[in-house]
Amino acid sequence: MAAYDYDLFVIGGGSGGVRAARVAAALGKRVAIAEEYRFGGTCVIRGCVPKKLFVYASQYSEHFEDAAGYGWSVPPASFDWNTLLANKDREIARLEGLYRRNVESSGATILDSRAELVDRHTVRLVADGRIVSADQILIATGGHPSPHPALKGHEHCITSNEAFHLKTLPQSIMVGGGGYIAVEFANIFHGLGVETTLVYRGMKILNHFDDDLRTGLQEAMSNKGIEIVCRAVAEEVVRRDDGRLDVRLSNGDTRTVDQFMLAMGRSPNTEGLGLAAAGVATGPTGAILVDRYSRTNVDNIWAIGDVTDRVQLTPVAIHEAMCFVETAFRNNPTAPDHDLIATAVFSQPEIGTVGLPEHEAAKAFEEIEVYRASFRPMRNTLSGRDEKMLMKLIVDAASRKVVGAHIMGTDAGEMAQLLGIPLKAGVTKDDFDRTMAVHPTAAEELVTMYKPSYRVRKGERID
Amino acid sequence: MAAYDYDLFVIGGGSGGVRAARVAAALGKRVAIAEEYRFGGTCVIRGCVPKKLFVYASQYSEHFEDAAGYGWSVPPASFDWNTLLANKDREIARLEGLYRRNVESSGATILDSRAELVDRHTVRLVADGRIVSADQILIATGGHPSPHPALKGHEHCITSNEAFHLKTLPQSIMVGGGGYIAVEFANIFHGLGVETTLVYRGMKILNHFDDDLRTGLQEAMSNKGIEIVCRAVAEEVVRRDDGRLDVRLSNGDTRTVDQFMLAMGRSPNTEGLGLAAAGVATGPTGAILVDRYSRTNVDNIWAIGDVTDRVQLTPVAIHEAMCFVETAFRNNPTAPDHDLIATAVFSQPEIGTVGLPEHEAAKAFEEIEVYRASFRPMRNTLSGRDEKMLMKLIVDAASRKVVGAHIMGTDAGEMAQLLGIPLKAGVTKDDFDRTMAVHPTAAEELVTMYKPSYRVRKGERID
Repeated sequence: MAAYDYDLFVIGGGSGGVRAARVAAALGKRVAIAEEYRFGGTCVIRGCVPKKLFVYASQYSEHFEDAAGYGWSVPPASFDWNTLLANKDREIARLEGLYRRNVESSGATILDSRAELVDRHTVRLVADGRIVSADQILIATGGHPSPHPALKGHEHCITSNEAFHLKTLPQSIMVGGGGYIAVEFANIFHGLGVETTLVYRGMKILNHFDDDLRTGLQEAMSNKGIEIVCRAVAEEVVRRDDGRLDVRLSNGDTRTVDQFMLAMGRSPNTEGLGLAAAGVATGPTGAILVDRYSRTNVDNIWAIGDVTDRVQLTPVAIHEAMCFVETAFRNNPTAPDHDLIATAVFSQPEIGTVGLPEHEAAKAFEEIEVYRASFRPMRNTLSGRDEKMLMKLIVDAASRKVVGAHIMGTDAGEMAQLLGIPLKAGVTKDDFDRTMAVHPTAAEELVTMYKPSYRVRKGERID
Repeated sequence: MAAYDYDLFVIGGGSGGVRAARVAAALGKRVAIAEEYRFGGTCVIRGCVPKKLFVYASQYSEHFEDAAGYGWSVPPASFDWNTLLANKDREIARLEGLYRRNVESSGATILDSRAELVDRHTVRLVADGRIVSADQILIATGGHPSPHPALKGHEHCITSNEAFHLKTLPQSIMVGGGGYIAVEFANIFHGLGVETTLVYRGMKILNHFDDDLRTGLQEAMSNKGIEIVCRAVAEEVVRRDDGRLDVRLSNGDTRTVDQFMLAMGRSPNTEGLGLAAAGVATGPTGAILVDRYSRTNVDNIWAIGDVTDRVQLTPVAIHEAMCFVETAFRNNPTAPDHDLIATAVFSQPEIGTVGLPEHEAAKAFEEIEVYRASFRPMRNTLSGRDEKMLMKLIVDAASRKVVGAHIMGTDAGEMAQLLGIPLKAGVTKDDFDRTMAVHPTAAEELVTMYKPSYRVRKGERID
């Protein structure tokens, strides 16, 4: 082993890379980690964390409105985008520092440089041209928003990366895409007072999610005043003389907006990494191909997180990092468990989901029971806000196991997290029924739906 | 059976009585339900529901403060108590109507009268003096705040009943008691701008709860500016000439306040019910004594809910009602399950808890593992609010079962509801560990505490 400079060289200082470096270093391994930009990766620097801070900021406009029904008179509030940006940047810098210090204190060596593979054991540090060698190499370079070069005028568009640093808050924005990033940003901008349009190729936003969530969120967003244009895509973006953008849509419309944000998928960061030189194979989207232990076709090179395009979520990358260290350094081959991952969409209303949507459960099981409740949460009674909460449980009739749980409404993400525990443990609907309600909560609905709303047998709904 | 006017006579139109009447009527039984005041009981009329509406109202002052860190400038807001009361009363009336209509549509007969037992099968309706007979009788008359007659000047005090209808919002209030009602109202009044003092006989608020929750909440409330005076009780309340109250405390202090709210326990509503005439036995606190099936010593008379002083919670009363109907009318003796009831305290910060507190678990098990995290939730970063969230899991080391979960912070009640499911199902800490995190949420902390903070063996803490 001493033939190499390091036992482990990690490329990429995001959630996955940092966790792998820290844990391996804690085992006494000689570890280096290279990051060309800022520690923390997509999640901390331009993803989950700043996104959720923006979500909080954008919710206040509704809080101010809702207060009236509770007896409060709130004079018109004003919003300053630059204050939000500055405070957000300060918090991100704090978290970045935390990530960095955690790596340092683990004993791993930090290299502030882009790193490129020279061969299967050798890495070149672009910052100073230095060459270092390592026994094992972990690629955790993440991904980036697809720039959608096929779109004419795409160079006038922004992505989520730029949305976190816009010099001014636009008066109007169009968001292209119907996935969770598109939906979250459409709600953020709308909440901050921006006239917002979402344009999406599909029939309904949030493809692959449970259909009730898709319908429910699309209606709720439309009711708020977000214009959602489905079955349409942008075909050309033209910069006008006044600096605004004319977006020509496939449905024949042309819209003039201040910004157009592309949120149509993310691509793995594999360009210029030296993968070919090291002989590492990638798939058709550029993602690094790995086996179930996150090992590439080159047996001392591994890859985890978004660069492998398995499940693009921070906790999954961290989990893959832990499994990688078990496998590579503790002689305990451990495959990441990608089954039953709870997720949240920080839309407004929020979505939380774990397990199978109804349409998938109906295919996977002979007969399912669907428990469904749609109700006005208590907070919305006095506020007068006309926004319903949706809760849905999918049960395999044969085993009585709860195989899917889907929630739309306040705290849906927190709820999905905690529903993940019983679903992962494989508990039954009877276990839900045996649980005493906590009153008054919204979540009590999930343990008091005693009778199925309907059943689906062999794919056919029966009431 | 036709020898009696009714198969079932229910006394009391609260959550328990209404549920029993509806379910029995749906079985085809001839049911009457008598309520002397308003349908909905403590929960709907002067408990859980209006309380939670007040909690929402009282949280806005912090929302307005927190908004600044997110870029919002909010001019000073004003609060109008009478608007809140009127809107709350309208909502309560709506819910009451819902309860009434649900009873009507079930086919049960509504009697708007106080009802008193004449003998074990006979009831007198006080409103018109009518006498009716019933095969089975269910007493579900609930409870009321103890008026604390031992306190000199107690007649100048209010209880939670009056707090929901005060003509004006006091400028200052003292709350006597340290239980959940005292704590919730202290936070409500403080949030609405009232100078609030809580006086409690014990060492620390929320006796019987996990000690970390007690300490954490007491500190958080003190930090907000609520004065908490422990190891003291009011000894005399004197009405001053200016209408305010001088409260003389056992620690020698005298405080002058606009209102003094007594929140020192609740008493069962058993006075003047004719219990003696029917031969129904009560315990030392006046509560009706029942066996595990909610049957009194008189075998056709049953009692459920707060009047039995078992667990004073709405969902428990409803559960007891369902079990009663199974037992009395479906030939399926079913004892209510009072084990592992999740509960919330709608304090600010909120508390949610299920299972054993640490001190009880340490007695119940040879060795326990305690997992504990205290952190600043993401919302509080930009707001600058200096309020931590606390999460704690107690695990029986031998079985690996999670036997207690305790949370303080936003949405703790919702979280406790959902943690109730896996705890009731008896899942292990390994099931928690196997659950993927949802990022960024607060609840993810509950599935990412991999190492115990400490252990307690034979009652001794070992690190």
